[in-house]
Amino acid sequence: MLIGVDLGGTTIKAGLVDFEGNILKQSSRPTRVKMGHGTIINDICEQIEELIAAQGIHIEDIHSIGIGVPGLVEYDTGKVKYCSNLSWNNVELGAELYSRFKRKVYIENDATAAGLAESLFGSTKGADNSVFLTLGTGIGSGIIINKHIYSGSHGAGSEIGHMIIGENFYNCSCGNNGCFETLASATSIIRYAQHRIKEYGVQSVILELAGNKLESISAKNIFDAAKSGDALALETVDRMCKYLAIGIMNIFNMLDPDIIALGGGVAMAGDFLLEQVKEKLDKMLFTTGIKYGRLVIATLENNAGIIGSAFLGYYINADKDYA
Amino acid sequence: MLIGVDLGGTTIKAGLVDFEGNILKQSSRPTRVKMGHGTIINDICEQIEELIAAQGIHIEDIHSIGIGVPGLVEYDTGKVKYCSNLSWNNVELGAELYSRFKRKVYIENDATAAGLAESLFGSTKGADNSVFLTLGTGIGSGIIINKHIYSGSHGAGSEIGHMIIGENFYNCSCGNNGCFETLASATSIIRYAQHRIKEYGVQSVILELAGNKLESISAKNIFDAAKSGDALALETVDRMCKYLAIGIMNIFNMLDPDIIALGGGVAMAGDFLLEQVKEKLDKMLFTTGIKYGRLVIATLENNAGIIGSAFLGYYINADKDYA
Repeated sequence: MLIGVDLGGTTIKAGLVDFEGNILKQSSRPTRVKMGHGTIINDICEQIEELIAAQGIHIEDIHSIGIGVPGLVEYDTGKVKYCSNLSWNNVELGAELYSRFKRKVYIENDATAAGLAESLFGSTKGADNSVFLTLGTGIGSGIIINKHIYSGSHGAGSEIGHMIIGENFYNCSCGNNGCFETLASATSIIRYAQHRIKEYGVQSVILELAGNKLESISAKNIFDAAKSGDALALETVDRMCKYLAIGIMNIFNMLDPDIIALGGGVAMAGDFLLEQVKEKLDKMLFTTGIKYGRLVIATLENNAGIIGSAFLGYYINADKDYA
Repeated sequence: MLIGVDLGGTTIKAGLVDFEGNILKQSSRPTRVKMGHGTIINDICEQIEELIAAQGIHIEDIHSIGIGVPGLVEYDTGKVKYCSNLSWNNVELGAELYSRFKRKVYIENDATAAGLAESLFGSTKGADNSVFLTLGTGIGSGIIINKHIYSGSHGAGSEIGHMIIGENFYNCSCGNNGCFETLASATSIIRYAQHRIKEYGVQSVILELAGNKLESISAKNIFDAAKSGDALALETVDRMCKYLAIGIMNIFNMLDPDIIALGGGVAMAGDFLLEQVKEKLDKMLFTTGIKYGRLVIATLENNAGIIGSAFLGYYINADKDYA
């Protein structure tokens, strides 16, 4: 059996996963960011111990422990090099968990782990080359090339959220302007709607749905308002879809994968989103007669993180030839 | 021995190459585009026959024939699917050459072939993951992943020139606006300088260097004027370097290669170009503490096409483990 941990900025999700990708048991805890990495690592360890106890097994029954983290990892050492949501720098996550459990520990970027799950059991299963995009607070991605995780030469690959694709009215947290994630994430549409209401006094159902509090606007408010025909909401979604199409087209033109899957909160808008993006994409894709891959909504939803993390070790130990 | 052919929009270059990557003999002919693909293929065959005769060997002494073409190829069949410079669509280049010589024939995108040459014998030698960019009329690229050519699931990978990175005053030939190659190729700087002189009446040494003919401005005129301190030339080069830095940063953030090498006509500007791009890039690269790959000028220059094409077959036959 495998353990997968999806370490997020607000929640730690952990699961006991079988070799067919089924989650047998799972639990979640809030991520106590302010308490520092020691507390968080201890919380993760307790969650793992609870899962094992609840299943009535022992730690020796666990093949390996995998953890997906929202940042950059040093694959070989299991060190989290950088993680802005958690304010982590060079945290020895892998070594700490190994010393506690004496099981092999594998750490990966969370979106990369989710992309692995989709490629083993979900929307991109069977594809040689695929890209998973998670559209949430930011934009994360997981690249699969020749059925294996591709994370670059320094673990900084698949930082697709920071690809510059245009100009924007606010700068990205990375310091640059026009990053993909400032134009096509959940945060990007919230900020755009707030900006239009505040700066230009635009009237919108969005504000009503957010209880007339500008700072309470959520991505869901915007999609709900758009579905009801609200002009600002439609404009906001249209703008996001335009930039989503540009970002996706750039991925097709650089990596030419068999398939690109959209996950994360924004992708919950499903076909409403997909159809608009596809329409824009079809008009943009370079020249006729070239076959491009497919664009789909990811299928494993919130479970992708746990499943993908669980399989990091099994997948690697199987001489990188699982799938 | 190997045969490599670099089929360009203006010149066909062919060479006899040994297994250490040395060009033993080479020749070139104009590409007679208007005569159609039959004539061009016949010209290529004649060049190959002449090279073999000049070396005093027989066709049976040739391991394989490789051809780099400025377009999209169907790798398995040796078919050129699309090639705008030559007005080719679905040309059976591989089959035609095989029927003439009865040697194995391998076709690839020309920039990809040049990228292979750089990775076997040039600027990116020894790197697991590298990207070669050719900055000329357009921007082509060759991606090497795990020491092997990566050309995507449908041969459309590495169309990095059509990555959208901003907004531009003219549209790309592909129909979109803001493509990398309309902002950072030789053509892009010529068009920008022409645009500024024509629309805004800007005075510049560039025009003098081009014999006072707007339509005769070359990329070399612009670089020469910039080196002499001409204001418009410096502005034009600065703008190109800004977008070159953005495009390169996008590649680092998506693929995180060990090394990116710049080739093609524009890269002949060497350190003058490289230093400006590096300065902008250093300011942009996402967060501190992350290790990114190196940026260099490619070293094989005009020979990369012939050498890379020659090795397409040898490389593949050697169970993809040459290098």
